[in-house]
Parts: sequence; structure tokens; C-alpha cells
Amino acid sequence: MNLRDLNIIFIGAGNLAANLAKALHSKGYHISQVYSRTELSAKTLATMISADYTTVPEDIINSADLYIVSLKDSAFEELLPKITVGKQQALIVHTAGSIPMDIFRNIMPRYGVLYPMQTFSKQREVCFDSIPFFVEANNTTDLELLKELAQTLSNKVYEASSEQRRYLHLSAVFACNFTNHMYALCEVLLKKHNLPFEVMLPLIDETARKVHELSPKQAQTGPAIRYDENVINKHLDLLADNQEMQQLYELISKSIHELQ
Amino acid sequence: MNLRDLNIIFIGAGNLAANLAKALHSKGYHISQVYSRTELSAKTLATMISADYTTVPEDIINSADLYIVSLKDSAFEELLPKITVGKQQALIVHTAGSIPMDIFRNIMPRYGVLYPMQTFSKQREVCFDSIPFFVEANNTTDLELLKELAQTLSNKVYEASSEQRRYLHLSAVFACNFTNHMYALCEVLLKKHNLPFEVMLPLIDETARKVHELSPKQAQTGPAIRYDENVINKHLDLLADNQEMQQLYELISKSIHELQ
Repeated sequence: MNLRDLNIIFIGAGNLAANLAKALHSKGYHISQVYSRTELSAKTLATMISADYTTVPEDIINSADLYIVSLKDSAFEELLPKITVGKQQALIVHTAGSIPMDIFRNIMPRYGVLYPMQTFSKQREVCFDSIPFFVEANNTTDLELLKELAQTLSNKVYEASSEQRRYLHLSAVFACNFTNHMYALCEVLLKKHNLPFEVMLPLIDETARKVHELSPKQAQTGPAIRYDENVINKHLDLLADNQEMQQLYELISKSIHELQ
Repeated sequence: MNLRDLNIIFIGAGNLAANLAKALHSKGYHISQVYSRTELSAKTLATMISADYTTVPEDIINSADLYIVSLKDSAFEELLPKITVGKQQALIVHTAGSIPMDIFRNIMPRYGVLYPMQTFSKQREVCFDSIPFFVEANNTTDLELLKELAQTLSNKVYEASSEQRRYLHLSAVFACNFTNHMYALCEVLLKKHNLPFEVMLPLIDETARKVHELSPKQAQTGPAIRYDENVINKHLDLLADNQEMQQLYELISKSIHELQ
């Protein structure tokens, strides 16, 4: 079967679903329906990719070839019994780093995972070319199909077991969400002292670029790695009015020092 | 006086000093001498920029126009009385985010600060064009001189008071050192599960690029911001063998959730 002949349905219309659906649509894939319990999300995404939409799980079309489930973990478990009814011929995949493939076992005969490891926001379109996709399936035919499909979007497609994927997802939380939170705390500090966040961008960029060449351990600089107690104590004093940031500063500095 | 006629001496040959001295040298400045207590560092840098070197504070030439002091805070305080003797005609500046300009008060008549806010490693040459420089001086003539000098290296030169600079430096620790440590922890996790760190680079790059367009607060994604306890608890379980990372995961997730 030609990949572009697949009749695809998206279950979920969140950040990841929206970005992935738009990327597939732009590559000529046919997505016939979008389900979301939030009508606005379903409608907005459906309109962008010329699909129908529904907010009723029972109205999800039964005859599609590929169901891509992209839901919050809690919603996933709740909806799973409803969305699989009558779809036994189809391939069903989810897009989550943290959910094992076996969640579909005993429910569907053909299943898999299509996990694009990236941070998706609706306000920003992401270029998929270099996003790593991690794929898994319960049979080799579908594994090949998922690989091929992912390769039409990205040049970085890997097989990964559910076990590997959960560590990838945990690592991604550190590399992305926690990193972004360091930026956010930095913004809090700067705002409080009437300094613009944008002065930090060259430093943020260089910090990211650097680990393309050096390992993060080699790339480290600053007071914690030098164990410059003088500076560390001055910084803790400056954070005296924010106990939480002070505690974070102390714990992360200790962790930097210990990793060496 | 033409800037290129300045006789410049570097006191210190660490990461920042080496990068800054090389950048000045490549722009045609004349650096006549490098001091470091470590002979190898002094010699290596001096050779690269065609300067002399010394490891004896008393042998630092007295007749230069500009002394750029780039030392660890603790070494700075110790050396300051020695390096200022006989140099009362010169302008002396330091390059530290965390040290107030007034450290030179009562010791030298002309003093200032030239703080390039960036992460410097000896293994990696940094392009200075877009590095923010924050300058300060105790008189307007030298403030202009430092601005002009910084502008020959970078197109982002700002005036900042000592008070502002210490908050910039603290913010930079979050945006750079702590961010880099998130990468480092990510690498620890991946290594343990035989996964290559490089799979994270597209995510790291996008996380940095994103805050050029969205504020870090808007850009946040992942389990902590959704307060997805299901995923958070799974992640804490995966970190059961590493108490420190578990504690960091919990504290940062809490902080992400509270910032919203």
C-alpha cells in the first residue's frame, strides 16, 4: 500500500498532535478526521488540514487504516476502551514517550508507537527534518511502515523499545523542560531588576551550541564547577527573598560539583 | 589616543582571559604581557598573541595603559595589592560579573569593568560579534574608552552598574551553568541506558531557539506544566537509584508548576 493512500485519523489535537498532523498533511498524507474532547481544538486543527472532526469518541470513523493517538496519559487510559471498538483491522499507534507499547496488547492486533522527541507549542511551527523519531511495533510489517512514514518527515528515525523510550522521555524532560525552566527563572530575576531577557539569548545559544562539540561535562563553566564559594555565597545572598530559588541554586550547584 | 596604540596587559590567563585576549589580538590590539601564576597558562596564551609573560606579580610591567584583570574572585582579592603598585597612571578593569567596580576604589584613580557575558572554554573559540559586553567606569572618559573598545569586538555593548551586573551574573548562572547541568544529567541518564547523547541535540537546539520567539514561561511543555502526576510519578520511580536526581526532578517540577 502506498503510504499516501493511508486513511489516517488523529485522536487528540494538542501541541504534539497539531504539529504532527500539519507536518503529515503538508507531506501529502490524507487525514480524514480529528477527535478531541475540546471542540475548539478539534475544529481548529481539522480546518488546517482539511479534515472532519468530532468530540464524541463513539463517532470516530471505524474504517481508517491508521489511528494516531496523541493524548495526555490520563485521558489516554480513560479513552482507550472507547476508541478501539470496531477498529480491529487498523494499525493503532500512540506518540507518547512515557507509555509502553503494550498498553494496546489484548485490545488491538496491530499496534505500535511513533514518538517524535521534540517540544511542541501551538504558537510555533517546528521543522520536522531533524526531529528524532523513535518507532516501535508489535510486528515487522508495521514497524517498516512506521519507519517509512517517519522517514518521509525526518532524516533521524530510530527503533527504540518501550524501555529505552521511557528513559529517552525522562532525559528529554531534563534537556528540554528543566532547561527551559532555568531560562524562566532567569527571566524572573531579570524582570525584577529591570533587565531585558533578550540580553541572555547569545549566552543561551552558545550554551546549546557548545554541547554539539564538547560533552556537557567538559563544557561546564561558572562558580559551581570552580567551587568558588565566594561567588556562590554572594549569589545565595542575592536570592534571600526567594527561598525556592535559593534551594534550587544550592542543590544544582552541589550536583554540578559532585558530577566532576 | 588611538585604541590600537594602547599598551594592554592581561592579568590572568583562564578561559575568559584567553578568549578575550585572542579576540583583541585578532582585532589589531597590542597586548604586551600576560601574567598568570600558572606558567603553562601564561606561556600558552602569550605565545598565541605574541606577548611576553610572567608568573611573578612584581614583574608585571608598570608602564602599560590598560590592565585587564581576569582572575578567580579569591585570587583577585589576594593579588590586588600587588598588581596595582606603580600603575597609578593606567586604567585598570576587571572582567567579572560578580565583583563590584569599587574594589579598585582607594587603590587606583582610574578604574572600570569590562564584562563579556558568555561561557568560555579553552577548547572552543567563541565568536565575539554578538556577545553582550557590560561596561562601567569611575569617570566618563574611561567609560567612553571601554565602550569604544568593546564595540570593536561586539555589536552589543551596554552600560551596567555594579548592582545590575551582579544580577546579570546570577541570571547567567541559571541560563548557562544550570542549563548545561541539565544537559549533563541528561547525558548521565542516557549513558546508563546505552543511548547516545547526540539524539538530544535537536531538542536542545529547539528549546534554545524557542525562547527567541516566546517567553520561557509561554514556551514550557512537558509533564510538570500539565501537572501530569501519572508521568511525574513514573519518572520519579525511574530515578529511584539516584536520590539526588530524584530530589532535583521533584523540586524543579514543583517550581515549574508554581511559576504558572
